[in-house]
Amino acid sequence: MTMDPDTLAALPATDATARMQAGEFSAADYARALLARVHAVNGQVQAWAHLDPAHLIRQAEAADEARAAGEACGPLFGLPVGVKDIIDTADMPTEDGTVLHAGRQPHDDAFIVRAMRAAGGLVMGKTVTTELATYAPGKTRNPHNPAHTPGGSSSGSAAAVAAGMVPLAIGTQTNGSVIRPAAFCGVVGYKPSAGLVPRTGVLTQSPAFDAVGVFGRSVADVALLAQCLAGHDPQDPATRPRAMPPLLATARAEVPLPPTLAWVATPFWDRVAPDAQAAFGELVDLVAGRIAPFELPATAADAVGWHKLVMEAEIAGSFEAEYERGRDQLSASLQAQIERGRAVTAVAHRQALARVPLLRAALDDVFDHFDAFVTPATLGTAPEGLASTGDPIMCTLWTFLGLPAVTLPLLHGENGLPLGVQLVGRHGQDAALLRTAQWLTDTVNAAAAADA
Amino acid sequence: MTMDPDTLAALPATDATARMQAGEFSAADYARALLARVHAVNGQVQAWAHLDPAHLIRQAEAADEARAAGEACGPLFGLPVGVKDIIDTADMPTEDGTVLHAGRQPHDDAFIVRAMRAAGGLVMGKTVTTELATYAPGKTRNPHNPAHTPGGSSSGSAAAVAAGMVPLAIGTQTNGSVIRPAAFCGVVGYKPSAGLVPRTGVLTQSPAFDAVGVFGRSVADVALLAQCLAGHDPQDPATRPRAMPPLLATARAEVPLPPTLAWVATPFWDRVAPDAQAAFGELVDLVAGRIAPFELPATAADAVGWHKLVMEAEIAGSFEAEYERGRDQLSASLQAQIERGRAVTAVAHRQALARVPLLRAALDDVFDHFDAFVTPATLGTAPEGLASTGDPIMCTLWTFLGLPAVTLPLLHGENGLPLGVQLVGRHGQDAALLRTAQWLTDTVNAAAAADA
Repeated sequence: MTMDPDTLAALPATDATARMQAGEFSAADYARALLARVHAVNGQVQAWAHLDPAHLIRQAEAADEARAAGEACGPLFGLPVGVKDIIDTADMPTEDGTVLHAGRQPHDDAFIVRAMRAAGGLVMGKTVTTELATYAPGKTRNPHNPAHTPGGSSSGSAAAVAAGMVPLAIGTQTNGSVIRPAAFCGVVGYKPSAGLVPRTGVLTQSPAFDAVGVFGRSVADVALLAQCLAGHDPQDPATRPRAMPPLLATARAEVPLPPTLAWVATPFWDRVAPDAQAAFGELVDLVAGRIAPFELPATAADAVGWHKLVMEAEIAGSFEAEYERGRDQLSASLQAQIERGRAVTAVAHRQALARVPLLRAALDDVFDHFDAFVTPATLGTAPEGLASTGDPIMCTLWTFLGLPAVTLPLLHGENGLPLGVQLVGRHGQDAALLRTAQWLTDTVNAAAAADA
Repeated sequence: MTMDPDTLAALPATDATARMQAGEFSAADYARALLARVHAVNGQVQAWAHLDPAHLIRQAEAADEARAAGEACGPLFGLPVGVKDIIDTADMPTEDGTVLHAGRQPHDDAFIVRAMRAAGGLVMGKTVTTELATYAPGKTRNPHNPAHTPGGSSSGSAAAVAAGMVPLAIGTQTNGSVIRPAAFCGVVGYKPSAGLVPRTGVLTQSPAFDAVGVFGRSVADVALLAQCLAGHDPQDPATRPRAMPPLLATARAEVPLPPTLAWVATPFWDRVAPDAQAAFGELVDLVAGRIAPFELPATAADAVGWHKLVMEAEIAGSFEAEYERGRDQLSASLQAQIERGRAVTAVAHRQALARVPLLRAALDDVFDHFDAFVTPATLGTAPEGLASTGDPIMCTLWTFLGLPAVTLPLLHGENGLPLGVQLVGRHGQDAALLRTAQWLTDTVNAAAAADA
């Protein structure tokens, strides 16, 4: 059978792989449909750092041949995945968004790339990252309006999924680098609990906070991919040998009871744009009865400073070679971060990190009463201009604490650009958080349908 | 039946508990025999920071009653254990060897104290530690000659076992604080692989290096106790959920093949006392054919500086409150350590720690060819005088790398004081290391018997 390429490219990943596994269409047809989409829109969006159509088709044809030969299909069978260009791939360069690493070709796949391929996924290509996954933007533009930033640092991963060039993508978050671009680009972004997804083979920026995250166009899609990336890797001391949570099955399951949500305006609410404040006000009204305001402990605001101190100290260590050998080719903002970080003492670094378990424990009790926090993913819609990737402050506390977070493209600003609704859960309760996220999505969509 | 108290007190722990479990004598009789020994020798040795004979007898009588009531006996049934006074006990003060913590009474037992009691062991009392487990000595004297140091920082634990006041004791090592005092006091000391024994409830000095260790009068005795302390504690991120090694059974087993040993003179050999050099020369001759000299990589000597930088930076963080509130009551040496540590940057701390996996991996290949390294535990016998606890340098590299180490009281210096033979194994291969240690002990004893 043949299908309209645009129709194929628009399929949810869960549907696309199910239909490829059933033989309704081939992985090669699906890949060609996505490449057609790339041809149509990437000139404007610029989401890719490396993309070799012939190599993608070869991967897809190999998958089709294996299936034809009777090999079992993995849960990601035939699905191309965009991989942020700080994540090592043995068959494509990984240049980390800096000229200092131009032409860098890893010998091995990162743990998560091996896991993704083992599950039947294909590497579509490498997506644009900011400079060393920090603040200096890459070339990517927001698919909804090329005059606006896509957010960062996982700019290309978010934009490629939003533009329909790939159903799924992998990124990383050390401050707000998954949730923010997902929100600005109007897709689902999910940052798992610290320790759930191994980071071996991913550029190290700040070991205390670096986290792998995923992008998709539905909660089920991000659950499907994240479930295939989670695991234990002795090389990543943050991971543990343990049973992995059934993210997809739980995300698709009925909620046992309607969830109880906490509305967290955060200490930064007065910096949230008026149109975003209004949109969130309507959301809270829409789920009235199921949501109650919750005020964070006073120390929550201090977490931004603790996070900055630890992150900059660790960035200074992680990028010392780049600073020593090529500081002139680093952005002024990264040079300044590194210089601040070099001055941080080991004692101050440890004291700041020691706040994590204390604050996490304080919030843990709160999660006895609430299924999830609901809070803005960003201060507003994607800012105009490409010189900045926007402010990560609405993500910083959750990253500092290593809590699972998901952003849902349920709202819009006055200018029509998407706004992300961020849900945050208890550490380790990722599956339940995704189930709650699906419930909120269904609830909002049902209400919208009723209005229409 | 009744037994000569001195005979009882001299029993190996493995025999003593087996006979108490069999009902040959009671835990109360055994405790009284040990208390008689304390009465006879502690006035000179001064091994105890806290010792309440009545409380010990009550614990022993409770154990006897439980056994009489048909309760199962744990593997440490009836065995009093000396516990270093930096390890929390809910029923005794824990004063950390500093007047700043005078009268400190923990609410809870440390993880290892709970584990030890759950296995049937009793807390004999709290043993003398140096100041905050650093360098400034406590009151303890060497049982073999009260004019000499017992070593530190686990001074009381080593001396109490050596003097026959208790069959087993627990200490800690951040540099050489288990192996050194065990060697100076002529007992077996064992520092497990990093991550094998949880540290929750133990005074934190340097999280990167702090390790729990044990003291006994035989390899089997330290294996018995360590096996009951090993485990997984989510509160100690260095530990992992995994099957625990059968230390005692392996230590008692026949070696499958005669071990191959590496003689490691270390870069510090020229600082080893001539009589110790001669004694080790005789040992190497005695196992000729089974031992070959091995030269450490050049970077091994640098590990001493890396260890010092990390340890002092972490000491500065761990004892900041003591320094801020009571520095006048800290020793000059600890004040100087803290002041050096406060100046260490987070980048330098991380760079030094990053050497651990590299150097460990380099030595890992060596352990493909050797069952254990054989090296001096100290630079010589216990130095005269009580102002210093001696030099830990022969332990520093192994502590830095988190490798398992055991010291065996197989040699003596010209002055008749004991010398420790240190065996070091591959990380995680603790059981095999103890089996090799038993083999070396048997081999040396057989040769001595042949001479006699």
